[in-house]
Amino acid sequence: MLAIRDKVRFGETDKMGLVYHPNYLHWLEMGRIAYLEQCGVTLNALMEDGIHFPIWEVNVKYKNSMTYGDAYEVQTSMAEFSKIKMTFSYKVMRLRDGAVAVEGTTCNVFTDDKGKVKRLPEAWFSRINQVYLKDIEENESK
Amino acid sequence: MLAIRDKVRFGETDKMGLVYHPNYLHWLEMGRIAYLEQCGVTLNALMEDGIHFPIWEVNVKYKNSMTYGDAYEVQTSMAEFSKIKMTFSYKVMRLRDGAVAVEGTTCNVFTDDKGKVKRLPEAWFSRINQVYLKDIEENESK
Amino acid sequence: MLAIRDKVRFGETDKMGLVYHPNYLHWLEMGRIAYLEQCGVTLNALMEDGIHFPIWEVNVKYKNSMTYGDAYEVQTSMAEFSKIKMTFSYKVMRLRDGAVAVEGTTCNVFTDDKGKVKRLPEAWFSRINQVYLKDIEENESK
Amino acid sequence: MLAIRDKVRFGETDKMGLVYHPNYLHWLEMGRIAYLEQCGVTLNALMEDGIHFPIWEVNVKYKNSMTYGDAYEVQTSMAEFSKIKMTFSYKVMRLRDGAVAVEGTTCNVFTDDKGKVKRLPEAWFSRINQVYLKDIEENESK
Repeated sequence: MLAIRDKVRFGETDKMGLVYHPNYLHWLEMGRIAYLEQCGVTLNALMEDGIHFPIWEVNVKYKNSMTYGDAYEVQTSMAEFSKIKMTFSYKVMRLRDGAVAVEGTTCNVFTDDKGKVKRLPEAWFSRINQVYLKDIEENESK
Repeated sequence: MLAIRDKVRFGETDKMGLVYHPNYLHWLEMGRIAYLEQCGVTLNALMEDGIHFPIWEVNVKYKNSMTYGDAYEVQTSMAEFSKIKMTFSYKVMRLRDGAVAVEGTTCNVFTDDKGKVKRLPEAWFSRINQVYLKDIEENESK
Repeated sequence: MLAIRDKVRFGETDKMGLVYHPNYLHWLEMGRIAYLEQCGVTLNALMEDGIHFPIWEVNVKYKNSMTYGDAYEVQTSMAEFSKIKMTFSYKVMRLRDGAVAVEGTTCNVFTDDKGKVKRLPEAWFSRINQVYLKDIEENESK
Repeated sequence: MLAIRDKVRFGETDKMGLVYHPNYLHWLEMGRIAYLEQCGVTLNALMEDGIHFPIWEVNVKYKNSMTYGDAYEVQTSMAEFSKIKMTFSYKVMRLRDGAVAVEGTTCNVFTDDKGKVKRLPEAWFSRINQVYLKDIEENESK
């Protein structure tokens, strides 16, 4: 699991006074990008290597609302990983009271830059897989 | 089912050259707002009456990508409706070839303006329910 | 001058209940894209030809606020045009009362896809210039 | 002058591969919010006191582009301040090479929650004015 922290921006709210619901997907993305970066993988490097990673599926439950000024933590784990796709699971915690704001999963597939499905090359795969396997191990030893 | 049409805006794309995935949630919202408007219900009128409608759950499958300039149709149906919550289901069609770009569901609950769950008052309920029941009837007669 | 119309989306508002101010820049872009399209020029075709058009300058005055549900018209004129850059001027009209919501100008330069300044090729230039010159003529004959 | 730092988010880019130009306005807002917070003033507290602060004018020059992954610093100064309005000036620095990415100014007016212009109450005014005067002093002694 990898945790990142940030604060709600004013422009992320809407007329109901709360965070506009699609904006949580931006934060989940920030979470999985940070997860990949700890594996030594940046989206820019993948794209320069001709690998794209479009989102295939998003499932999100909104449990407690947040508004401008709230600090939050995005907790990201890799739930499934193969050369075809990666599935992450997330919790967004509202830090002022420790409530879960949002819970969800996303699935990305790997494609070339024309959108054709493509297996992730071994060099990239092994970097991510090492961290993924270590995460599983840690979870099992708990 | 209610259909609305629009075109992808340039600013809705991202560095992969395609529509940035959270932006589809904006379009689903445009779909359900249009659905409610055909029932004679606007979000502004609900809010003036102290009724908020935060999103509770979003599930989306991304099937075919879209980019700047693509025209699309959002097809919105009410899947479930009560005084507690409403569930919509959607298809976003890519009009140049009739492919399904995105399929999904959203669930809103009704709350007061402090976020406390609140039953939808009868006057609002019956307006929406009439359209909902007519939709069910039409689907069954097919 | 070219006019396009649209309605404020719910997600374009913020916690003050009004349109979040950067979102007007999205609409100005929609205005200039429509202006270019009437010249037979699409951003996708420019990009496929290796021509980018980053924004160089934006100046906007906010005169009257708008909120979710308001219909608006973006009126776009080309103020200056050369093979180096194009300057557009805009008025965003709030249609319920004809008030000017926003007034402004933007300037784009032309670059290659690495961001290096590049003169707009003659074929593209003449398409846009024809419409630009006709606009000037019409304004002078008024 | 107050400086804050952050990194470009993936979703802040567009199809040209660079930061979508309206998104810089979000960062300027983050800069002025941080400036006000060092004065002991939060937007939420202002709004609870019935004070809104709509943007009146924005002027921005884009000097060097940024893309996903770039770190930046927003340097915010108060250029003018009265009970009627506040003008901030900004520099957004691209940290990898110290280049100025964006330079600009914004002006907010103070209004009530109906959008009617309203003088900023003395208690709020003096908090901000203290920091503003100190900033001027420091600039003059340089």
